[in-house]
Amino acid sequence: MDKKVLQKLSYGVYVVSAMDGDRPTGCVVNTVMQITSSPATVAVSVHHDNYTHDCIVKNGRFAVSILSQDSDPAVIAAFGFRSGRDTDKFTMVKRTDFGGMPVIADAVGHLTCRVIGKLETDTHTVFLGEVEDAGMASAAQPMTYAYYHEVVKGKSPKNAPTYQEETPPKQDKPVYVCSVCGHVYDGDIPFEELPEDWVCPVCKQPKSVFQKR
Amino acid sequence: MDKKVLQKLSYGVYVVSAMDGDRPTGCVVNTVMQITSSPATVAVSVHHDNYTHDCIVKNGRFAVSILSQDSDPAVIAAFGFRSGRDTDKFTMVKRTDFGGMPVIADAVGHLTCRVIGKLETDTHTVFLGEVEDAGMASAAQPMTYAYYHEVVKGKSPKNAPTYQEETPPKQDKPVYVCSVCGHVYDGDIPFEELPEDWVCPVCKQPKSVFQKR
Repeated sequence: MDKKVLQKLSYGVYVVSAMDGDRPTGCVVNTVMQITSSPATVAVSVHHDNYTHDCIVKNGRFAVSILSQDSDPAVIAAFGFRSGRDTDKFTMVKRTDFGGMPVIADAVGHLTCRVIGKLETDTHTVFLGEVEDAGMASAAQPMTYAYYHEVVKGKSPKNAPTYQEETPPKQDKPVYVCSVCGHVYDGDIPFEELPEDWVCPVCKQPKSVFQKR
Repeated sequence: MDKKVLQKLSYGVYVVSAMDGDRPTGCVVNTVMQITSSPATVAVSVHHDNYTHDCIVKNGRFAVSILSQDSDPAVIAAFGFRSGRDTDKFTMVKRTDFGGMPVIADAVGHLTCRVIGKLETDTHTVFLGEVEDAGMASAAQPMTYAYYHEVVKGKSPKNAPTYQEETPPKQDKPVYVCSVCGHVYDGDIPFEELPEDWVCPVCKQPKSVFQKR
């Protein structure tokens, strides 16, 4: 079985968010799709280990922010590679609220949804949500998962369904890998010569979190 | 509620196929996503009215062919705008078989799946399938739903979750709309002056199926 073909499925890049009591939280997912047109419903797949998962189960509501090609990389850094258990992610980005649900201000648009169905798997829950509110915020191009990988050079977080462990290619010169987001440095300047205030282009973490392999 | 934001979700374009006794059948969908990585599972949403839906329910298996930007438009014409009830769709395109499941030869690759879960809605079933086999057939770029709409100028079939009824824009000159696939003719040559062997660029139906609006 050639599992690489699974990487040829096309997706967008989204932040799925929910309320944790009074505190908003969320995580990056690529798995959002519309299921029915009338009433409008969408399915969202969230890993059981994501803190957002439990908040959606508890409250029965979630929001989807559609990230754009122009979205601040800080959004993916905060929502893709940190846990809502110990990070107030929404303090790190611009936030808007719709009907009591937190969304990313810097997005193409948002959906807020009420959970009306669920499909369980060993690792992920597929939530079926009826769209309660939907709005456009920007005319920017939606970010696709292909764009994230090919242009932003981003990696899949460990909880993503599409995650596949990577072995950096064997070569003579050392490879530097971001320990936070998995980004492999491939710039022209040797890594050792990068200025000390250089940060990971994907997750904006400092040079010091990179590991030599 | 601005439902247009739902059109900003990103998808691919796929043929979901199944066996109908000895006869293979299938339909175009945009709603395929990977749910878990180990074991690999994918979710596929299919309208209850699609003949393929009942064949999947009956046999508990389906295949996914990932269409490419180079896929023969005849594939979308056959699988997107005709019904398997009265059309032998797989006689109209090149077919390959994997483990007894029919797939489109002219695709990026295929998945064959065994149904292990279901999520029901009023109009669609979301099938959860465990991937039994997966293979790559071509290095071509996967067709995205955005590419299908913007470059191929294709329309959504009525059973697509993303379907929204369109009113052709009011203008002085008459508008010609394909009664099979909804394509609105927008070429430079006046429609009346097109040669009689001209066919719809999307579904390959003859000039005679176009209606003046």
